Amino acid sequence: MLRLGPLAAAGRLLPAGPRLEPPRPAGGRVSFLRCWPPRLPGPVGDGRPLSQQVRAAADSAGGGGGRGLALKTPKGTRDHPPAHVALRDHLLAAVVACFKRHGAAAIDTPVLELRLQTPPLRAPVLPIPSFQWLSSCSERAVVFAMATMQVPFARYLAMNKITNMKRYHVAKVYRRDSPATTRGRYREFYQCDFDIAGQCDPMIPDAECLKIVHEILSDLQLGDFLIKVNDRRILNGVFAICGVPESKFITTCSTVDKLDKVPWEEVKSEMVEEKGLSPEAADYIGEYVQLHGGLDLVERLLQDPKLSQNKLAKEGLGDMKLLFEYLTLFGITGQISFDLSLARGLDYYTGVIFEAVLLQQENDHVEEPVSVGSVAGGGRYDGLVGMFDPKGRKVPCVGVSIGIERIFSILEQRVKAEMLYKKDPKLLKQLQYCEDTGIPLAAIVGEQELTDGVVKLRDVARREEVDIPREKLVDEIRRRLEP
Amino acid sequence: MLRLGPLAAAGRLLPAGPRLEPPRPAGGRVSFLRCWPPRLPGPVGDGRPLSQQVRAAADSAGGGGGRGLALKTPKGTRDHPPAHVALRDHLLAAVVACFKRHGAAAIDTPVLELRLQTPPLRAPVLPIPSFQWLSSCSERAVVFAMATMQVPFARYLAMNKITNMKRYHVAKVYRRDSPATTRGRYREFYQCDFDIAGQCDPMIPDAECLKIVHEILSDLQLGDFLIKVNDRRILNGVFAICGVPESKFITTCSTVDKLDKVPWEEVKSEMVEEKGLSPEAADYIGEYVQLHGGLDLVERLLQDPKLSQNKLAKEGLGDMKLLFEYLTLFGITGQISFDLSLARGLDYYTGVIFEAVLLQQENDHVEEPVSVGSVAGGGRYDGLVGMFDPKGRKVPCVGVSIGIERIFSILEQRVKAEMLYKKDPKLLKQLQYCEDTGIPLAAIVGEQELTDGVVKLRDVARREEVDIPREKLVDEIRRRLEP
Repeated sequence: MLRLGPLAAAGRLLPAGPRLEPPRPAGGRVSFLRCWPPRLPGPVGDGRPLSQQVRAAADSAGGGGGRGLALKTPKGTRDHPPAHVALRDHLLAAVVACFKRHGAAAIDTPVLELRLQTPPLRAPVLPIPSFQWLSSCSERAVVFAMATMQVPFARYLAMNKITNMKRYHVAKVYRRDSPATTRGRYREFYQCDFDIAGQCDPMIPDAECLKIVHEILSDLQLGDFLIKVNDRRILNGVFAICGVPESKFITTCSTVDKLDKVPWEEVKSEMVEEKGLSPEAADYIGEYVQLHGGLDLVERLLQDPKLSQNKLAKEGLGDMKLLFEYLTLFGITGQISFDLSLARGLDYYTGVIFEAVLLQQENDHVEEPVSVGSVAGGGRYDGLVGMFDPKGRKVPCVGVSIGIERIFSILEQRVKAEMLYKKDPKLLKQLQYCEDTGIPLAAIVGEQELTDGVVKLRDVARREEVDIPREKLVDEIRRRLEP
Repeated sequence: MLRLGPLAAAGRLLPAGPRLEPPRPAGGRVSFLRCWPPRLPGPVGDGRPLSQQVRAAADSAGGGGGRGLALKTPKGTRDHPPAHVALRDHLLAAVVACFKRHGAAAIDTPVLELRLQTPPLRAPVLPIPSFQWLSSCSERAVVFAMATMQVPFARYLAMNKITNMKRYHVAKVYRRDSPATTRGRYREFYQCDFDIAGQCDPMIPDAECLKIVHEILSDLQLGDFLIKVNDRRILNGVFAICGVPESKFITTCSTVDKLDKVPWEEVKSEMVEEKGLSPEAADYIGEYVQLHGGLDLVERLLQDPKLSQNKLAKEGLGDMKLLFEYLTLFGITGQISFDLSLARGLDYYTGVIFEAVLLQQENDHVEEPVSVGSVAGGGRYDGLVGMFDPKGRKVPCVGVSIGIERIFSILEQRVKAEMLYKKDPKLLKQLQYCEDTGIPLAAIVGEQELTDGVVKLRDVARREEVDIPREKLVDEIRRRLEP
């Protein structure tokens, strides 16, 4: 019997989630600044060699034979055994090859960034998803690990007075909110960013970013996908004509962003009860943000008597039309959806925004369907460099992040396979083990199959077997395991 | 006129060293635990969008037109522009190719590790060079960024009960002590580790590690190098027969380790005045630790009436002899020196230790000679896995770290080159610029040179020019710029 590699076995070697968590206030996103108060001890260590210190601590903590407490990875992080690294390197190579094909050069920035900490600004935390790791290193600065590489990129451009650059950056980044490791959301994870900085003719770099997402998701053969596109100016225009005051644009935006996870009724009630919009305004917004379509929808909204009167929305719709023209030339509109519910979490987007999602198929061959959310996202951020520049000089930017870690989780699930460590196991026992552990497929190669040039493929749950010509085996397994 | 690429220009784009430093006690190494007290503000941010917060802070901080304070990288870190990343990727590819040739598989571990923090052990800091980044995440654990990947590797082995593994790991690590960026010592830097875990016949994996260092330094054409080798057991044996009490072995070791930087007299006075050894003991130690040589020295010490009576030293010398036999078979003893002054900083080494240094040549073509220290180092650490294992089960390990960042600094210095951004600059002005800025070489290609198939190479300081056949140009430049 043949099984498909050591990935599942490797997966089982991974650490269980560490249990040492900070106390956490109930509900919502959590800022580490608040929930990780500085409880640093004063004097530390006792000067003895580590071996003695660790042993002493293990003795005092675990009583007799207690497990060493340091045998964990920090919450939301994980080790990657060789099979993981090999798969990840394979993914990264494909992504980087695409970035290079599109003419980008790599840069690298420190994993930490400095942040201002001067009164009245003690530490600007929220709008940029950063992750506070380090205690303050002086009274005027706080060091942050970034959750997005667009911020270090903007700082890099401003610092070096670069007004034109196409760069990619592959690195570990760190997110602030609670990890959900079963859904592939880790606190420490790899990200692959591609960004274009500089003044260009409208929508050309934006279209290139979408083309890149399309190329990468196609190259990686992840199955069907959809790239949702919207524009912050269109959303803001919708809010304006629906009577939302400008001060509530951002918070309304973040409520709209939930439409891909919860039904409209819940979104509406949050708008009314938490965000203080009138039910009429919410309903009016609902009419727009539930729309999605293609160029036809753009055209229709350009004719919308109210929306077309709003300057921002009109600009956004005009650019969206132009974008679809480029995407048509690229031949990729089949996977593009103009979706007014797409809002994206980041505050600093100023124009086009987009997000790629994999389309999950019902498939009972997969033991536990993985809900992976978006696998790529990005947008235009024309103001971020100017925030760093002492004179506020702007450099328009648009870029995309490839969620390599999510993609990794999907592929890991898909190629999960295992070896049985028995010298001479009976076939029935092996099949029983497959049923017990929920392994979906077993490939059986006996003497008859060798003679016939086939492999017997067994659907474990249904107990159905079928002979597959060897040259078609890989395709057949791939087809059956598709999500 | 031809100049050799954009590296120098890129170098000049690098940030000046940030000035936001923690207050630092005078002298010696600095522990961040002590010098970065937790001064975290309570409530942070004021809820406004970041753009407004940053602008407000810049206004209040900089007065009028003041430079934004966040336009810096944290102390001891730097950005890497595309030319840097390209060079580094080239280096990493060579190193990883060698690791793979020797059969290692890659693993990846989080950049942070958990550490015990239970009374009486508040936070074991010193013996393992870790770098405290994160505030405590609970009362029982502190998270550290590691300065060596041997510690996460040992934790990985213990956690997954692996007793046999050949792995490599390329990642960013973080050092605690003060950065010296001009000497290529950054706080955040890449490291390439290769380690062999598992019970093997004596000195075979140790010899392989040395072979790997030799291969990599040869492959990278870094010029002459020397790999110093010693054994902790020999050092401890020397200390023992010189009358040093066992409790002072480690501290005496760290004093001996300074012999490559300061003369013996200084080392001796530290031993006597700071470490409390008698002048006679220090002199006695001095007779041994100033010895270096090859197999002949090993043989001589094996005959040493006192040292050969010490069990540890005898073991170490026996293994050293065996090691030299393997190194002779590998044909690399020409670059190996058995050097009794080599001690290495890490506390957890238990047997063979080694360190590779580049041999600097006097060469006045190089503007500012770079003193780069060691470019690789490692050793045997048979006890580290057992420190993590709850039952103390030991897994013998030996490994090597390649100091890719130091090597990068050397190569960067060597190929530094620049473009002049003038449309039609006069030759004399260009040569003047070279003299003003200390550029060592100018390559001149005019019509005559094109006809003759040569390039005129000018020694800028001496104002001497010589025609070089084009096919020999690269070698000639490389020769002249060798350190």
